[in-house]
Amino acid sequence: MNVHEQRYNSLRRLVDNRLRSLVKQGRPKEVTDACRYVLSAGGKRVRSTLVLLSCEAVGGNIRDAVDASAAIELMHNFTLVHDDIMDNAASRRGRPTVHTKWNVNNALLVGDVLLGLAYQRVLKTDSKKLRRILEVFTQGLLDVCEGQALDLEFEHRSNVTLEEYFEMIEKKTGHLISTSTELGGLIGDGTEDQIASLRKFGRYLGRAFQLQDDLLDVVADEEQFGKTIGGDIVEGKKTFLLLESLERANGKDRAALMRMMNRRAAEPLRTKAEREHEVKAVTTIYSSTGAIEAARRKIQHDTMQAGAALKSLPKSQARESLLWFAEMLLKRNS
Amino acid sequence: MNVHEQRYNSLRRLVDNRLRSLVKQGRPKEVTDACRYVLSAGGKRVRSTLVLLSCEAVGGNIRDAVDASAAIELMHNFTLVHDDIMDNAASRRGRPTVHTKWNVNNALLVGDVLLGLAYQRVLKTDSKKLRRILEVFTQGLLDVCEGQALDLEFEHRSNVTLEEYFEMIEKKTGHLISTSTELGGLIGDGTEDQIASLRKFGRYLGRAFQLQDDLLDVVADEEQFGKTIGGDIVEGKKTFLLLESLERANGKDRAALMRMMNRRAAEPLRTKAEREHEVKAVTTIYSSTGAIEAARRKIQHDTMQAGAALKSLPKSQARESLLWFAEMLLKRNS
Repeated sequence: MNVHEQRYNSLRRLVDNRLRSLVKQGRPKEVTDACRYVLSAGGKRVRSTLVLLSCEAVGGNIRDAVDASAAIELMHNFTLVHDDIMDNAASRRGRPTVHTKWNVNNALLVGDVLLGLAYQRVLKTDSKKLRRILEVFTQGLLDVCEGQALDLEFEHRSNVTLEEYFEMIEKKTGHLISTSTELGGLIGDGTEDQIASLRKFGRYLGRAFQLQDDLLDVVADEEQFGKTIGGDIVEGKKTFLLLESLERANGKDRAALMRMMNRRAAEPLRTKAEREHEVKAVTTIYSSTGAIEAARRKIQHDTMQAGAALKSLPKSQARESLLWFAEMLLKRNS
Repeated sequence: MNVHEQRYNSLRRLVDNRLRSLVKQGRPKEVTDACRYVLSAGGKRVRSTLVLLSCEAVGGNIRDAVDASAAIELMHNFTLVHDDIMDNAASRRGRPTVHTKWNVNNALLVGDVLLGLAYQRVLKTDSKKLRRILEVFTQGLLDVCEGQALDLEFEHRSNVTLEEYFEMIEKKTGHLISTSTELGGLIGDGTEDQIASLRKFGRYLGRAFQLQDDLLDVVADEEQFGKTIGGDIVEGKKTFLLLESLERANGKDRAALMRMMNRRAAEPLRTKAEREHEVKAVTTIYSSTGAIEAARRKIQHDTMQAGAALKSLPKSQARESLLWFAEMLLKRNS
């Protein structure tokens, strides 16, 4: 284990402990139980790690950013719980989703409570820039909502373009990543240039991160991934792979992709055999059209751009850890 | 029209205009259309009026409180949209609810967006006490969630006590009323004593306001009320009237009330005739046990306590307007 990985593990523990202490065993039991369930699911704590390292990378003290880093994780989990209701998702991180384990009403409330706790937490931040910190935090929230709304809208359309796709993931995923790096820079009292660099780093990282997610749906190790491979294909989700393949495919392949894109409106795939056949067929097209390779190239490109953005920060261990973290995330297979 | 009513109407217009200007016609259309739909529904703007008048009552300028007053209205509407999903309510203020007019997913997102807009708006407040303003605002949010969770929990229980009922309405309704008066006092830079008085005024007013709501379900003018009389009875909702009647009733009456309390779990009332018969029968019990009279007395008592709390504020037109507003609200019949 290298020095960066050790650091990451200790930061992750710090955030996990902070999150655990937030939800008191209270009433009504159903809501607090479900909040604890969500927050104990672990996860990579990507956003909170970015807040902490970004704060340190501009010369700040990590202790000042712990509350905001817990807050961003709370907000992220709020979006997951509500998105899972909207997407009708049965499992998350290998466990039943809140609305599956309890019910939709409880999941709705749990999301609202997590968001309330997020604001309560970020308000503990001791900074002269509190107003701006909260403005950035709130803009992150509004962008995530807009991104999710676009994602839902895409479900009913068969003419989504790559450009629209990138706008959607920028808002739905990318923005909360760059919100995290920007918050860290603000709390660490970085210069405006440093904060802009951190935001840029976060934007590239966020895009690469989401592309990696699209890719993992097709190439991941199923057990480590915590969900069934090919879920996006079965659902006819408009991912980068689908839209890029459509731009490249002709004839029979193109027809198959269009069928997949329109499937939601028509008949869902009922049997396991049907689903497995479809996943295999579409994955073959993604590969032969070169879309998988294109995704890999884009991820590499964005990772490099993210790294380049960090160059303008002073050389430090935290800056190196940010670089390591970005590369580690984009090489992950689960 | 007296001077207080004129003032109230002009404040209400101010808030309506501010709210109208907040939601730009944007994308995705479904979300922004629904946000505008919610915010254009009018309503009494109780909470925003209280923010504005409370600010003025401690010597502040109303202009400084307009953003916070719009914010509290946005938060209130967020709770309405999400509560309507959870309560499966078909109409609100005489119009279809968001999840009925659109769908549950859109209503869920619209609620989240309204809450994001609420924070964006309250952050515009120019005050040295911004952190505390936001802490009070956020505590209001968390309490409303807890109150709604208790309300949902009560649905599945037939042993709810009056004490539990008062705790639930204090959180679900009362707290956002006292949050409003407290915010006004903070923004107007009142003394700690003045702020405590405003909070107390809000707490009594909030409780009386909710009792009045329970009462109106039984005695209101149906057309002005905007919903069907006796809705709480048909749903077997644990209101003050039901719980108070239960403490007072014996024999046949008590049995009828227990049947109503347990109905949700058993068979719902299917026909209009069944429903009308039940509403009439239960209303008669509410009346004969003296529960309706008890509600009226409690409302009067809380209104007086609310008024007494205002006494410690300096005499001013705004203080008189607050008193008039409280009395007007509690004499309303819709």
